Amino acid sequence: MWLVLAVNLCLSLSGYYLVLNVVPKLRDMFMRAGLTGKDLGKKEKTEIPEAAGVISSCIFLIVLFLFIPFPFGKHLIHKDAETFPHEEFVQFVAALLSICCMVLLGFADDVLNLKWRHKLFLPTIASLPLLMVYYVNYNSTTVIIPKPFRFILGSDIDLAGLYYVYMGMLAVFCTNAINIYAGINGLEVGQSLVISASIIIFNLIELSRDCWSSHLFSLYFMIPFFFTSLGLHYYNRYPARAFVGDTFCYFSGMTVAVVAILGHFSKTALLFFLPQIANFIFSLPQLFHLLPCPRHRLPRLNVKTGLLDPSIFQFKESSLSLPGRLVLKIYQMVGVIRVENDANGEEGMLESTNCTLINLALKLGGPTHEKNLANRLLLFQVFCSTIAFIIRYPLASLFYDC
Amino acid sequence: MWLVLAVNLCLSLSGYYLVLNVVPKLRDMFMRAGLTGKDLGKKEKTEIPEAAGVISSCIFLIVLFLFIPFPFGKHLIHKDAETFPHEEFVQFVAALLSICCMVLLGFADDVLNLKWRHKLFLPTIASLPLLMVYYVNYNSTTVIIPKPFRFILGSDIDLAGLYYVYMGMLAVFCTNAINIYAGINGLEVGQSLVISASIIIFNLIELSRDCWSSHLFSLYFMIPFFFTSLGLHYYNRYPARAFVGDTFCYFSGMTVAVVAILGHFSKTALLFFLPQIANFIFSLPQLFHLLPCPRHRLPRLNVKTGLLDPSIFQFKESSLSLPGRLVLKIYQMVGVIRVENDANGEEGMLESTNCTLINLALKLGGPTHEKNLANRLLLFQVFCSTIAFIIRYPLASLFYDC
Repeated sequence: MWLVLAVNLCLSLSGYYLVLNVVPKLRDMFMRAGLTGKDLGKKEKTEIPEAAGVISSCIFLIVLFLFIPFPFGKHLIHKDAETFPHEEFVQFVAALLSICCMVLLGFADDVLNLKWRHKLFLPTIASLPLLMVYYVNYNSTTVIIPKPFRFILGSDIDLAGLYYVYMGMLAVFCTNAINIYAGINGLEVGQSLVISASIIIFNLIELSRDCWSSHLFSLYFMIPFFFTSLGLHYYNRYPARAFVGDTFCYFSGMTVAVVAILGHFSKTALLFFLPQIANFIFSLPQLFHLLPCPRHRLPRLNVKTGLLDPSIFQFKESSLSLPGRLVLKIYQMVGVIRVENDANGEEGMLESTNCTLINLALKLGGPTHEKNLANRLLLFQVFCSTIAFIIRYPLASLFYDC
Repeated sequence: MWLVLAVNLCLSLSGYYLVLNVVPKLRDMFMRAGLTGKDLGKKEKTEIPEAAGVISSCIFLIVLFLFIPFPFGKHLIHKDAETFPHEEFVQFVAALLSICCMVLLGFADDVLNLKWRHKLFLPTIASLPLLMVYYVNYNSTTVIIPKPFRFILGSDIDLAGLYYVYMGMLAVFCTNAINIYAGINGLEVGQSLVISASIIIFNLIELSRDCWSSHLFSLYFMIPFFFTSLGLHYYNRYPARAFVGDTFCYFSGMTVAVVAILGHFSKTALLFFLPQIANFIFSLPQLFHLLPCPRHRLPRLNVKTGLLDPSIFQFKESSLSLPGRLVLKIYQMVGVIRVENDANGEEGMLESTNCTLINLALKLGGPTHEKNLANRLLLFQVFCSTIAFIIRYPLASLFYDC
């Protein structure tokens, strides 16, 4: 087992160096193809390559293609069709298929700017092979009920088909949650690094327990993911020399969803997404247009100070629906948005900070430099992962028997 | 078996209608993304969408994702992990993985214009999961020697590792052979239609024989491939309203290579590639730069007549290497190229028709309208498939015992 992990680590490190090398080399190719974006958080809005995530994700795929034979080494040498672990092998291949599909979709999105309905529909399709493998290999759809609810629901409940809906939605959620918690240099890749590092630590802890094989499987994917993303982070951190694009967000979300589903730790994996979940819930009123949602919600640069201010949306209170006004009041009371009169606008025009965690951080911490803001948000992600571990280990025993 | 094939056919037909519907809808998206090309064979060089192959290949993948459960239906209903045909299932998933990778690569090529070394290296990587599955499930690397050579080599020979090299190269060859036999409206998709139709007929014939399960597997892929490509052909045929791009050529080549490898009929599959092989061999001196190779070798439009003339390359005989001069002489003697003095150029400048099957057809048949030329070349492809069937069935018994 350790030997195979060592091979995986070596290949991952090669992947890291390959990403470091290849990204600048392909720079011109991206520029010529018009795959570029303006960095809205800088004074000089120079064009830099967009969708560089396609490089790190392709290198991730290459690393895993080369790695495939190793976990099955001893079965391959003593060719024995009887004992060959087809279940594990098919998991491996199906996981790669789902990830590869998602990279293709993400890249198509970056190039073509797909519509929202495609973004929800296609990840569901991409997770079909995965669910099929889950069905064939496990088909365990029973969920253990936390102790406090057992007196109502019993000790466990078989969700049957609903469990597959849940897993399909997990893939859609992971891919989109990372995608909407983005907008400043280094945040997309940084959060993925923290999440994958947390999962790696969790897997390593669990390696000594009963379900070690699922966690070993997860490590095979998470270690290369961590290192190829680390290479990409070098170019995406402040000041960004490449944007990672939707490609990376989709790739990243799907990779985590895949190991969570096939490794049977989807609930723990979701714990590592606390900031993303918070950001998603916080954003919901804008996503569902209860409140106006501008095209971009990333913070705006104050050109005088060089610091970032929260971005805003403008509205008339009378134009809001009743639920919209209610949400606005609640958010204002809890102190997560700041509503003011629009100084330049017409009478009765209000403005509010946008409902994202990034803007909330700026509202709470005051104007901040982009680099510090990214670091602060990533520290928050690390903090949340620590909370997640506390929930998973000491606290879980209060709710479960394990 | 027939019920599953009927489901496959229904899904394929839905795929056909989906392609017909979606291509025009996504037209604007492609135009905005700058994924467009000029039709060099028309008087008015309007921009039309490029890389539309990504649409048909994604729909192909969706069709197959939805189809996956059906061949395993009875095992899925009576959930029985013991009898579940994991070997077949993993073949299915690995085949899709290789195809999906290739679509990703092709689309990246269309967007980024990859270099030649990537085009050779990446299909090899993409075929790794396939070869791994082949190794695990069969690992039969023995080749039966044709009767005339048996007195030297014996009745069979175990190629061992070489057989895997051969299969890896088959994937590279199929993808690139279609790609270089292109340039006029409808030829890329048309030739793929003829090839896949030939394979479907061959599979149907073999369904009643010993290896029926491999051929059934092949049909699961070839029927949806045929119908989604047919939808695309509607837009790609003369006058083209969409170009299919490298995406389609790679996708098409890999899909054929996948079924040929996993269906154990790689030699027969190659027989259906006779025009592509001829075109490839004919092109070699230009590809290896023994003869000058201009950027585009597609026929040129004679604006006065509206017909296509062979395209040419210019050179000085003294600038050619010795092998180059030799090849030129041989080609001239066989009558496959026409060498003339360059009327407008300087003294001693010669011009020759380019070494492609398309230009050869124009040299032999005289100036031709683009539509007729495509039809003529596709008829030639049908003719070659007929020859292939004659070689495969009546003639093979002269060389093999089967």
